[in-house]
Amino acid sequence: MYEFREKPAPVVKPGEFVFAVIGLNHGHIYGMCRGLLEAGATLKWVYDRDRKKMEKFCQTYPQAQMAASEQEILEDPEVKLAAGCEIPYLRCALGIRVMEAGKDYFCDKAPMTTLEQLGQAREAVGRTGRKYMVYYSERLHVEAAVFAGYLIEEGAIGKVYQVTGFGPHRLGSEPRPDWFYDQQKYGGILCDIGSHQIEQFLFYTGAKDARIARSQVANYAHPEHPDMEDFGDAQLVGDNGASQYFRVDWFTPDGLRNWGDGRTFILGTKGYLELRKYINIAEEPKTSNCVYLVNGDGEFRYDAAGKVGYPFFGQLILDCINRTENAMTQEHAFKAAELSIRAQMQAEKIFPV
Amino acid sequence: MYEFREKPAPVVKPGEFVFAVIGLNHGHIYGMCRGLLEAGATLKWVYDRDRKKMEKFCQTYPQAQMAASEQEILEDPEVKLAAGCEIPYLRCALGIRVMEAGKDYFCDKAPMTTLEQLGQAREAVGRTGRKYMVYYSERLHVEAAVFAGYLIEEGAIGKVYQVTGFGPHRLGSEPRPDWFYDQQKYGGILCDIGSHQIEQFLFYTGAKDARIARSQVANYAHPEHPDMEDFGDAQLVGDNGASQYFRVDWFTPDGLRNWGDGRTFILGTKGYLELRKYINIAEEPKTSNCVYLVNGDGEFRYDAAGKVGYPFFGQLILDCINRTENAMTQEHAFKAAELSIRAQMQAEKIFPV
Repeated sequence: MYEFREKPAPVVKPGEFVFAVIGLNHGHIYGMCRGLLEAGATLKWVYDRDRKKMEKFCQTYPQAQMAASEQEILEDPEVKLAAGCEIPYLRCALGIRVMEAGKDYFCDKAPMTTLEQLGQAREAVGRTGRKYMVYYSERLHVEAAVFAGYLIEEGAIGKVYQVTGFGPHRLGSEPRPDWFYDQQKYGGILCDIGSHQIEQFLFYTGAKDARIARSQVANYAHPEHPDMEDFGDAQLVGDNGASQYFRVDWFTPDGLRNWGDGRTFILGTKGYLELRKYINIAEEPKTSNCVYLVNGDGEFRYDAAGKVGYPFFGQLILDCINRTENAMTQEHAFKAAELSIRAQMQAEKIFPV
Repeated sequence: MYEFREKPAPVVKPGEFVFAVIGLNHGHIYGMCRGLLEAGATLKWVYDRDRKKMEKFCQTYPQAQMAASEQEILEDPEVKLAAGCEIPYLRCALGIRVMEAGKDYFCDKAPMTTLEQLGQAREAVGRTGRKYMVYYSERLHVEAAVFAGYLIEEGAIGKVYQVTGFGPHRLGSEPRPDWFYDQQKYGGILCDIGSHQIEQFLFYTGAKDARIARSQVANYAHPEHPDMEDFGDAQLVGDNGASQYFRVDWFTPDGLRNWGDGRTFILGTKGYLELRKYINIAEEPKTSNCVYLVNGDGEFRYDAAGKVGYPFFGQLILDCINRTENAMTQEHAFKAAELSIRAQMQAEKIFPV
């Protein structure tokens, strides 16, 4: 059995690392803030075009001042980093404005929707020397996923040769905003929720690059939204020969007790891992962050919830302060985005047939 | 919750349906016999070139007479069906001899290794009017898999649109016969253990045909056998737009309490199923045949072991007697074989890179 490591502690004192929030178009912004705050960062500002969204945000984070404009935040020299959840196709332009204002950018996934945007982002990073980091939450903010990284590092399953990921999501009964159904605006299912999967593949296998061997999308059951993709999957082959299969969908049934039965299976030459990330179905009580390890020594279950923490956020803060790349390299963040866009671009539509 | 149906009872009385065994090259023959015997069939003969294998077989099934030759069995008019586990590349030729002798053939999977053999088998079936049935045991002889078929039939998950299957197998420490490492003789990993997966895809989705969208194989960790494929996977798209991903490997770790953590995930428009077929890892006591259902009504676990039985065998016996196709159509058996061979033929070798 492997032991849990000590949970990460805050890395800065109040006021030492100030950040702001721009763009509240996805609930992920709450997780992004929580992660940064737990690591010691100080939240100063929030801005969104929609005042109602700002007011709601300030109920959770009353320390945030409502800015009158994005510019007010960008002009504040105290702000070192801006975290943003714009609508996906606007995320890159926001990031460039943030970086041009001399601040690092922490963007919700997917961080962009086209290769052209990616080129602009790469150029702006080079020109400004700022960071364009991405909240790939399904690894960075899931204790099972963090713990899996530790187990691999410690050799628990040998050399990782394949990663299989399932990313089912609940569509929900509340109406989604219009952009959710507009592929130009949200990027498509593989670019959007697929980006989590591709990032995990690169991380767990250590591949620096990969090719999209095959990708496809479908609309199996939502003819009322003909452009919607309710299912997508892809096979990737890494530059080190490791491979990935992932599938994502919007079919989480109403009877599931949470938003999605996300799983990651990591195959190694000496064993394998299964992460039941958000729920262990049909098990009482509702459990999350279950990590299963099978190797030469036996079958093991680790309940990682509350035991591991989220080292990414403190590392990110220190990276911003020290100009290092311990949380995530810029190239990794961009490569996952690039492959997500390519998977989307290459996708064959298989249904309706 | 759905109820278990009544388990199938024997369909014939002793002596009413006589079968023989030819070829003992894989342990599957024991399962094939057990299934037929439980359904009421009578085992009369066994033959293999290797007398030691016959003697071992007769310790389990003492009612079987050791034949002096295959011919002795083929000439016995009492024998209605011959069940055989030849080396894969010889299975088709045996089947043709069996059918030409006027008997039905029950073959271990994979039932053949080339499209040329498949053409010969199709021709012989047409000419003789006999059956060339296949023991796709990972569905036919697994109660979780049988029960999943019932649940789908009863509408528990809506329309099935995707099947994901994992077929890890243990290589084992005992030396494998030479043919195991000779692709010409065993057919390759996708043709061999992949055939189970493809058969399940056709069955659960109702697809009558499919194309291999992508397939690949690798040798990640067995350089001492350079031709060995220790991993393979594939994506199929059915003629009805449903799709499949499956992966198979020879990496079951020594610490797993059984030979492989086989899983099947069946996605429908109204819910999904997960089958933990042979083991529920890290759970005490060791459990098999766990069926998980998530749909609009909730999350459910069914322990199918011992509750479902194996209707295939009785149906096969009656099909042989009545010349019907209730157990499995000839076209289904051949289509799964064809696609397995095509997946193998199209496979890209991704490792060594």
